[in-house]
Amino acid sequence: MQGVILENISNPEELKKLPKSDLGELAMELRHYIVDTLSTHPGHLASSLGTVELAIALHYVFNTPDDKIIWDVGHQAYAHKILTGRRDEFPTIRTYGGLSGFPKMDESPYDAFGTGHSSTSISAALGMAMASKMQGNTSRQHIAVIGDGSMTGGEAFEALNNAAVSKANILVILNDNGISIDKAVGGLSRYLVKITASPRYNRLKERMWRKTGGDERDSKSKNFFSRTLFSLKSALLQSSNLFESLGFRYFGPVDGHNVGYLVDVLSQLKELKGPRLLHIVTKKGKGMKIAEKNPVTYHAPGLFDVETGRQISNKREDQPLKYQEVFGHTIIELAEMNDRIVGITPAMPTGCSLNLMMEQMPDRAFDVGIAEQHAVTFAAGLAAQGMVPFCNIYSSFMQRAYDQVIHDVALQKLHVVFCLDRAGLVGDDGPTHHGAFDMAFFRAVPNLTICAPMDEHELRDMMYTAQMDDMGAVVIRYPRGLSVHSDWKNKMQRIEPGKGRCLRKGANVALLSIGHVGNDAVAAAERLEKEGINVGVYDMRFVKPLDKALLDEVAKTYGYVITIEDGCLEGGFGSAVVEYYNESRAADKEFAVPEVIRLGIPDHFVSHGPVQQLHKDCGFDVESIVQKVKAIYNE
Amino acid sequence: MQGVILENISNPEELKKLPKSDLGELAMELRHYIVDTLSTHPGHLASSLGTVELAIALHYVFNTPDDKIIWDVGHQAYAHKILTGRRDEFPTIRTYGGLSGFPKMDESPYDAFGTGHSSTSISAALGMAMASKMQGNTSRQHIAVIGDGSMTGGEAFEALNNAAVSKANILVILNDNGISIDKAVGGLSRYLVKITASPRYNRLKERMWRKTGGDERDSKSKNFFSRTLFSLKSALLQSSNLFESLGFRYFGPVDGHNVGYLVDVLSQLKELKGPRLLHIVTKKGKGMKIAEKNPVTYHAPGLFDVETGRQISNKREDQPLKYQEVFGHTIIELAEMNDRIVGITPAMPTGCSLNLMMEQMPDRAFDVGIAEQHAVTFAAGLAAQGMVPFCNIYSSFMQRAYDQVIHDVALQKLHVVFCLDRAGLVGDDGPTHHGAFDMAFFRAVPNLTICAPMDEHELRDMMYTAQMDDMGAVVIRYPRGLSVHSDWKNKMQRIEPGKGRCLRKGANVALLSIGHVGNDAVAAAERLEKEGINVGVYDMRFVKPLDKALLDEVAKTYGYVITIEDGCLEGGFGSAVVEYYNESRAADKEFAVPEVIRLGIPDHFVSHGPVQQLHKDCGFDVESIVQKVKAIYNE
Repeated sequence: MQGVILENISNPEELKKLPKSDLGELAMELRHYIVDTLSTHPGHLASSLGTVELAIALHYVFNTPDDKIIWDVGHQAYAHKILTGRRDEFPTIRTYGGLSGFPKMDESPYDAFGTGHSSTSISAALGMAMASKMQGNTSRQHIAVIGDGSMTGGEAFEALNNAAVSKANILVILNDNGISIDKAVGGLSRYLVKITASPRYNRLKERMWRKTGGDERDSKSKNFFSRTLFSLKSALLQSSNLFESLGFRYFGPVDGHNVGYLVDVLSQLKELKGPRLLHIVTKKGKGMKIAEKNPVTYHAPGLFDVETGRQISNKREDQPLKYQEVFGHTIIELAEMNDRIVGITPAMPTGCSLNLMMEQMPDRAFDVGIAEQHAVTFAAGLAAQGMVPFCNIYSSFMQRAYDQVIHDVALQKLHVVFCLDRAGLVGDDGPTHHGAFDMAFFRAVPNLTICAPMDEHELRDMMYTAQMDDMGAVVIRYPRGLSVHSDWKNKMQRIEPGKGRCLRKGANVALLSIGHVGNDAVAAAERLEKEGINVGVYDMRFVKPLDKALLDEVAKTYGYVITIEDGCLEGGFGSAVVEYYNESRAADKEFAVPEVIRLGIPDHFVSHGPVQQLHKDCGFDVESIVQKVKAIYNE
Repeated sequence: MQGVILENISNPEELKKLPKSDLGELAMELRHYIVDTLSTHPGHLASSLGTVELAIALHYVFNTPDDKIIWDVGHQAYAHKILTGRRDEFPTIRTYGGLSGFPKMDESPYDAFGTGHSSTSISAALGMAMASKMQGNTSRQHIAVIGDGSMTGGEAFEALNNAAVSKANILVILNDNGISIDKAVGGLSRYLVKITASPRYNRLKERMWRKTGGDERDSKSKNFFSRTLFSLKSALLQSSNLFESLGFRYFGPVDGHNVGYLVDVLSQLKELKGPRLLHIVTKKGKGMKIAEKNPVTYHAPGLFDVETGRQISNKREDQPLKYQEVFGHTIIELAEMNDRIVGITPAMPTGCSLNLMMEQMPDRAFDVGIAEQHAVTFAAGLAAQGMVPFCNIYSSFMQRAYDQVIHDVALQKLHVVFCLDRAGLVGDDGPTHHGAFDMAFFRAVPNLTICAPMDEHELRDMMYTAQMDDMGAVVIRYPRGLSVHSDWKNKMQRIEPGKGRCLRKGANVALLSIGHVGNDAVAAAERLEKEGINVGVYDMRFVKPLDKALLDEVAKTYGYVITIEDGCLEGGFGSAVVEYYNESRAADKEFAVPEVIRLGIPDHFVSHGPVQQLHKDCGFDVESIVQKVKAIYNE
């Protein structure tokens, strides 16, 4: 249901032909189209509802795609996608082969820069602005749209600091809704509330608005109004100086849902040069009552009833818990046993389920904001004083804190437990969010123990083991999604670090798996058994230290080894096995090295789509494993 | 020469017994001792001279080591080391087996947290403060000493944002000297200048100081003075709100070289709770005229004459240039040929020699501040608009921007050239600064070309090749220190990406090297030749893509391969070779896999010391290579 205005707007050129008075109606239609579509094609709902007017105003005022708009994180850019040539394709969003859930340079010239991880937009916009300057283009505009949550990410501050002195033609639009995915936290967030809630400022603004004719005022008094407002504001609000003291010209706060006013303000800002910041206030979920009330739930609600907004669950009664939920319950259980345990998440409490601990033990669970680097060093500080922090970070976001793990934790042999959520291919979010590299990049780091559970019982055992006194830095990686058993709550027990286990013995071929994909190895073995092929299956559990004794045993028993990992092949788990067998052979000429076939994520970025499909594309789903084994038999 | 006061002070307990009036004299003695010692035992001079009074005041006022002091970066902590039980050992600083150049937890209980990379101190202090709180200790103080340069690093901002709302007992001391290693840059730096230069504020401060009795005033009026000063300042200096708007109580700016006043101020701040920030102004190189004037040169001046301060060069006339210098000259040469080339450094212009380009082409070379994450995305933004950025980042600092290389550059196939300076073991700076991991962590990333030159001619050829139109993201890694030839300026030519070269043919054993260590491989081969052993030597040049044709040829010719790399063995270059031979064997049963012995950095953190010594310890110096080959012959 695209609406009568929207169905005639397929690109910004057509948008620009609309009278300004139609833009409010267009916003309503866009919003309906987004809600309608996402009710049956799940996606990021609430953020995109919050930026409908902004997307319209930006494309109405600016000369896109020559002017560059960069959407920080990018899950709020659906209206932008619909307005820029992808209206009819929109229902394919986040489906295999369909539109990406994030801006993507090779999807559209209007997507000036791909995003997915937060806090990159100002840096990229500044780079583009400097390029334009060097290329002699002084009129091109470079616009970063960044949420108040993303603004807490250190990279955003680094970019503000650099941009402020650059004289670059850059406009930062701070989209302030008090919410990132969960509630925004920290000093910056409080500060923004203070600005937007300042009664003195708001009273004055209202009075002036009325005096100069309100909505009906002519363009001259309108201009006067805006200009006066901007210059008065600084004097009234000492606090607005945060951005100004860095060197930005600060404008706002303005209502981000008044599309006409946004068009006016942006038109004026367009005429200015240098680094500018416009602070707009929006509501996540705007226009859909239930989403406005529950922006965290409706960040990405899955299927929902378009009338009531009620979420439609396709959860089976006997379905296992998600690994995330098991983590959330288990850290509380452990924290009750061990009062040195604390929990840390960089802005993903609901996603990783640390919200459970934050509710139950508010003094021992910390949401530190979108701040992976800080999260890790903060954990190191806690550990240096005898606490045992569990720092839960998505695998792909851990790429942000790699140095801190090396420099602050591993080097100092501090006892920090890293729970790498969403390790491996994550599905619909695609390449920016796949946790493909962690086994390779962490394997290089001394003093780390790296493990991956095959099911939720092993996850619990690994968490239990990791918090014990004799441990140092531990990495536990597990995937997004459902665990395995209907009864998740085993009695936890210690797993000897560096010890794998044999799941079934076989002949000729051994499957060596790490983590959840071990279930696929077992499924493959069961299918092969029916065809009379009996393969061994080993759940290796630890990437580091490797279970060398078990690998020796495997080498003695089998001629072929197939390693299976939901991670990159270059330098990953399979590579560790190959390294070990290589060393064994060098040390002992008699050592019979089995032939090793490595399955995992190949050396290219993997697209978005259903996880099973992606595993198949990468060649490590059940069927691929079966075929690999058969190929050995058919050689 | 320790001085009559200093020679009786070997720890903070003894320091606390001194009358306050002796502290100025002690500062002078400490300064002499540091200058004297470093004139013959090179180290970080200027930063440490700037913090002498602060170190004295902190240990005089606070109850260390129970109170925690974290020195950000840590190269300014020499006075702290001398005052905390390491006075007589101080001349061993940065020598093999001697004191580390940085705070190190296992060196002293007074080193509350190890540092080396910048901007971690606030995060660590906050972690410790939260631990103390949970442990019921409400009196312990947690102090982060951080320079204005380090404050631009994103992690510091993430930590400020988090700390501000924590009510934690944390005191941030902003040590403002306008200099990090090079001149501090960015909006924050300008802002600090504005505060400290405010004539209105300074006039008032001086008048009040005199009115209340100046240095002679009694403690009551002194207290009044400080309190009034602190509360007036906010009203006078709107700009001081940057920290206050985040939620910190801001105090200062105060003269960081007036040790008596520092003691007074710190004593008062000690009584306050919650997040506080004290802004002190110091001079890098304080007390040594030539260093005050040239703080960049005297950051780590090497040997110098203690009377005149003149640097003593041990450079030979015919000595090759440093790789750094060759980079600096070559990027200018290339930028003159290709007007799309720009240069980027995150705060290391002198260290990496981009300062040459910044002088000669100021519009095309950027120092973006201590901001590795921003540097990389900024480069990506430039590349998205058709520029060819050369982003020069030390290997160990690149760990800070790993995600940005993956997410912003490699995924989008942008044409950015990363020059990884100080790759491999760096020597005296030790484990925080060794560039040990880059080959492993970058090899995992798709779309990257990774290479390492064996000498400066190859560096130039690789830089030349990397900027050509058909290239994407390229990583060029090279070590700290001298290159090879006396004539560095070859005519640059393209190197086919993924092509290695044979340096000498041999029998039975092939040495496969990557980068500068190839020179050691050649030296080893030459020594072996004299003993009648003729080994092949191959300069592989590319870690990715590997020269598979050359590896096939090697496999056909030699029974043994020794890989040599100045990088970690887990997942590194040698691992890539082993992976390839493993795949070759799986694909072709007839493929004769040579036995591969991998030399490189083993799986532990390597200490500080002379590079040659460290190579020996790791087993990949010339002698080790020779012995490995002989061992094969003696098998």
